[in-house]
Amino acid sequence: MSNRFLKTASPCEIVRKLVVKAVLDYRLIEAGDKILLAVSGGKDSTSLAYALSAAKNEIEAMIGGSFSLHALHISTDFCSCCKKTPLRLQLQTWGIDFADIFVPVIGRLKPGREMNCYWCSTQRRSELLKYAVEHGFSKIALGHHLDDIIETYFMNLLEKGKAEGMPVKLAYKKYPVSLIRPLALLEEREIIDCAKELDILAAACTCPYGVNSGRKKMRQKIAAFTNNDGAVKRRIFAAISSLP
Amino acid sequence: MSNRFLKTASPCEIVRKLVVKAVLDYRLIEAGDKILLAVSGGKDSTSLAYALSAAKNEIEAMIGGSFSLHALHISTDFCSCCKKTPLRLQLQTWGIDFADIFVPVIGRLKPGREMNCYWCSTQRRSELLKYAVEHGFSKIALGHHLDDIIETYFMNLLEKGKAEGMPVKLAYKKYPVSLIRPLALLEEREIIDCAKELDILAAACTCPYGVNSGRKKMRQKIAAFTNNDGAVKRRIFAAISSLP
Repeated sequence: MSNRFLKTASPCEIVRKLVVKAVLDYRLIEAGDKILLAVSGGKDSTSLAYALSAAKNEIEAMIGGSFSLHALHISTDFCSCCKKTPLRLQLQTWGIDFADIFVPVIGRLKPGREMNCYWCSTQRRSELLKYAVEHGFSKIALGHHLDDIIETYFMNLLEKGKAEGMPVKLAYKKYPVSLIRPLALLEEREIIDCAKELDILAAACTCPYGVNSGRKKMRQKIAAFTNNDGAVKRRIFAAISSLP
Repeated sequence: MSNRFLKTASPCEIVRKLVVKAVLDYRLIEAGDKILLAVSGGKDSTSLAYALSAAKNEIEAMIGGSFSLHALHISTDFCSCCKKTPLRLQLQTWGIDFADIFVPVIGRLKPGREMNCYWCSTQRRSELLKYAVEHGFSKIALGHHLDDIIETYFMNLLEKGKAEGMPVKLAYKKYPVSLIRPLALLEEREIIDCAKELDILAAACTCPYGVNSGRKKMRQKIAAFTNNDGAVKRRIFAAISSLP
């Protein structure tokens, strides 16, 4: 991406451009794809919904075929902050239809067990996958960005002794569906700037549990380790996410 | 390695034990090997010479055959601090014979070029390799430890965008010789403690150029990133250096 573009483009133009680049570089979208976008109501997945809808024609021209975009929100029994009506209306203005399912994350806890991020995310992920398969989706698009990917890599490296990150594209072996992460080339701060431009930041929903403290500490350590330098973070990303 | 052993063992017993573990886990030494130990006169390679000679019988019993140990020192035209006679005598007490060759590292610089770590290390490495091949050695043992390996990995990751470290064992494709790093499971502080016990620290030679500033900064950053926690560093090492 040229420096000239980055200097003159608006935050949302940058997000759109880097989503298109990720889609093409990693072949995230193919002609005929039926894409399910997991929308939490947060800045990341909402910005992704915007970028994919804004770049739809451009991507279709480049891949030589059309694809469809649908959004799914998963409501739970511990988070009631998400304003689904504004989210639905917002997505409608971008031409994306919206469905909502309810998962009793707390209700499914075995007696004596406490809520935690791991439990919640696996419950939501399995419902998302089930919904996608039952409704014939070929791709599930998630809103993880460059900082999420690096963070996961370093948490695995330092805490589990595994050199594993989040793949930009992951084909399930058991199911006819793949996960894609079209925000992989974007830093969180670039997405925040776009969310401000879209004026969605105030309405954005965040988990009432907040970022768990281990992840928060790791985020601060990575910022110090990389001087929060975008070029350094992109080099790390290049090393840990080889192109297909 | 049991906690009980680590609590009661002397620093040099720990170094010896972890050298034996690395030799067996990574199959660094085979029966019949003729091993050339690159000795700078510094704490790392001198401690390695001690550990390999002290554990020689134990390793030979475990691999079911004998191997021989020889040391090579490479003198240069920019470092005259190394006291070769004490080093030769020290190695003799451990039953290791000693050879010395001279490489004019500065003398080989093209006009206008300045000395740097990369130039020096490639010159020395190629002479070491040449010597090993000409004298029929099957292995070259280097004194790099766990912290060196992690440091190199992170420098490559953050500065070059490559997820590459120093392998514990590297077979050259072009030459009938392999590089081995038997100190791979040891932290630098563990080696320093052993060097103190051996009373070789005062005489140890260090490069007059010192650690280059980029490497020094990376060392400090890694210490902060890992809390200088041995368990964290060993998990990183496990992730980046898969067993054969």
